[in-house]
Amino acid sequence: MTNNLNFEGWSCPLPLRDHPNIILGHGGGGKLSAELIEHLFLPAFQNDLLGNLGDSTILSLNGTRLAMSTDSFVVRPLFFPGGNIGELAINGTVNDISMSGARPLYLSAGFILEEGLPLDTLGRIVESMAAAAQAAGVMLVTGDTKVVDKGHGDGVYINTSGIGLVPDELEIGPHQARPGDVVLLSGTIGDHGMAIMSVREGLEFETTIESDTAALNGLVAAMLAASPAIHVLRDPTRGGVASSLNEIAQRSGVGIQIDENKIPVNPAVRSACELLGMDPIFVANEGKLIAIVPPGSAEAVLAAIRQHPLGRQAAVIGRVVEQHPGMLVARTGIGGTRVVAMQIGEQLPRIC
Amino acid sequence: MTNNLNFEGWSCPLPLRDHPNIILGHGGGGKLSAELIEHLFLPAFQNDLLGNLGDSTILSLNGTRLAMSTDSFVVRPLFFPGGNIGELAINGTVNDISMSGARPLYLSAGFILEEGLPLDTLGRIVESMAAAAQAAGVMLVTGDTKVVDKGHGDGVYINTSGIGLVPDELEIGPHQARPGDVVLLSGTIGDHGMAIMSVREGLEFETTIESDTAALNGLVAAMLAASPAIHVLRDPTRGGVASSLNEIAQRSGVGIQIDENKIPVNPAVRSACELLGMDPIFVANEGKLIAIVPPGSAEAVLAAIRQHPLGRQAAVIGRVVEQHPGMLVARTGIGGTRVVAMQIGEQLPRIC
Repeated sequence: MTNNLNFEGWSCPLPLRDHPNIILGHGGGGKLSAELIEHLFLPAFQNDLLGNLGDSTILSLNGTRLAMSTDSFVVRPLFFPGGNIGELAINGTVNDISMSGARPLYLSAGFILEEGLPLDTLGRIVESMAAAAQAAGVMLVTGDTKVVDKGHGDGVYINTSGIGLVPDELEIGPHQARPGDVVLLSGTIGDHGMAIMSVREGLEFETTIESDTAALNGLVAAMLAASPAIHVLRDPTRGGVASSLNEIAQRSGVGIQIDENKIPVNPAVRSACELLGMDPIFVANEGKLIAIVPPGSAEAVLAAIRQHPLGRQAAVIGRVVEQHPGMLVARTGIGGTRVVAMQIGEQLPRIC
Repeated sequence: MTNNLNFEGWSCPLPLRDHPNIILGHGGGGKLSAELIEHLFLPAFQNDLLGNLGDSTILSLNGTRLAMSTDSFVVRPLFFPGGNIGELAINGTVNDISMSGARPLYLSAGFILEEGLPLDTLGRIVESMAAAAQAAGVMLVTGDTKVVDKGHGDGVYINTSGIGLVPDELEIGPHQARPGDVVLLSGTIGDHGMAIMSVREGLEFETTIESDTAALNGLVAAMLAASPAIHVLRDPTRGGVASSLNEIAQRSGVGIQIDENKIPVNPAVRSACELLGMDPIFVANEGKLIAIVPPGSAEAVLAAIRQHPLGRQAAVIGRVVEQHPGMLVARTGIGGTRVVAMQIGEQLPRIC
């Protein structure tokens, strides 16, 4: 990969305006989300643990290392091809915990129900959560239910939080990428986001686009068995692969270069993206991971991913470099290069 | 206390109807909430830990005993006399963890924000959460923010989840009450619920009714230092003292008798309750606890509560008995006795 761009004197292409009110983009996992965290949440809750900003936080408790994570789910519609809000809520928190290299164990579930929600609908969602928890090998151990007036909420919002055990030898985190590291991706991108969009926009393709929602803890365990020397794990949900890699580049103070031709995309997802003017690199995934590994371990880790049912289409998609720290640069399909900045706001609201 | 009632052949005074849809009462902490848990959540997520149904669940992790809890907050209005949704969210989860006798340590926060919420409002809530966390000595270590469309949500919903360390020797839980145990209450009841109702109904009294929202972990630590032999701890939030004692009676398979004259109630709360036709025993508290202790420890624990700033008005309010297992019986102000059944639904919707 080469780098044709000159980054001297680079500045943000769009000045961010001051928003006095919350807009949908603040929940989009892009620049606005990051600003909210940096300027509002972090200064108030200042502590070293929160400042790490990984998918989960690592704590020490009586000498035991725990990963803890929380995620609220507000996806619309509640049921979509390939899944529903319930399994998404289980898999999402399982995955956030797994991205520390931790083995997820115990989850909580907080439900905010809208008055008038059919109990039958809730029952289907809860059954599906239970099945997802069992498949992932985690236990749902505590819960809470609140009900809000009809018209507020959207049927069901679910928060899941959870904890897992971090093996002693691991030091995985978004700040651990090093120049020379190899960037791996476990499979096709954009499936979850475009499954949701296809339903919302009423798009029909020859094949239905299905969400990739899945628990990644088994895959991570297989990867760690192949090599514990993994530097970064990330599941590229809101904001997609582009936002995740931008965050890693910034947190690690390195540049990342990827080759767009190497990124697997299902044909139906590519068509849907073209139709809607979207770039799959920014579209949410719910069952994929990025792994950044030292060159000596790349082959072993890639082989382990490909042997797992969730990683058959895994690929090397790029490298970590010393140049342009904090930035993601992509070699485009036609051979040029472009800076892939983090998006300001939200391409797809209410995606998870 | 005597017991003038005959419980032979007792049955529920109101047959519960089958609700095909969620109603506000399902979030009220009464019978409908309990039914939802028993008939929908528990069968799906069946496991022994969830079945304990305490305010928090006790887990074992590498030999370390942890308490874990989750709570979502949907209180309306967001700001009320004596507090706001932010500090309520911190104190609520701190208290749930403390009711296992655990020392709360780490919390997560999941925000569901409504498009259009002034950032200034969010900032005030977050500042107040940070102050409450600092006051309680807990760290907020991980978070998540989602944004929903204008008109959905109500400004802010907050989920907090958390973990704490359970000292080895403790066995505190809602199933541990034994006949002969003494029922202690740490102070006045109904303050939180009536503070919220006064604002909603525009009631004015000579003194403003303020929420009692407070973190109870310091009080619990002082009580355990006085005697670790405590059997049950419970913070009577939704559904008030009556629902908490009913739950304990059912979980422990014992009867509970209380003396209404012994229960401290602020005069303004009593007036507001009379005006609105409410019974303070069913009204939510957010900074009070019930302790059920063996008779030999009652005096020491009561003294410890009274020495704490949050327990000045603590009192012995009743006893655990062998008779009428699963039921709460109150000696009324005029000397009779009545069965205090759990309420079906919700006296005060959206109270926390």
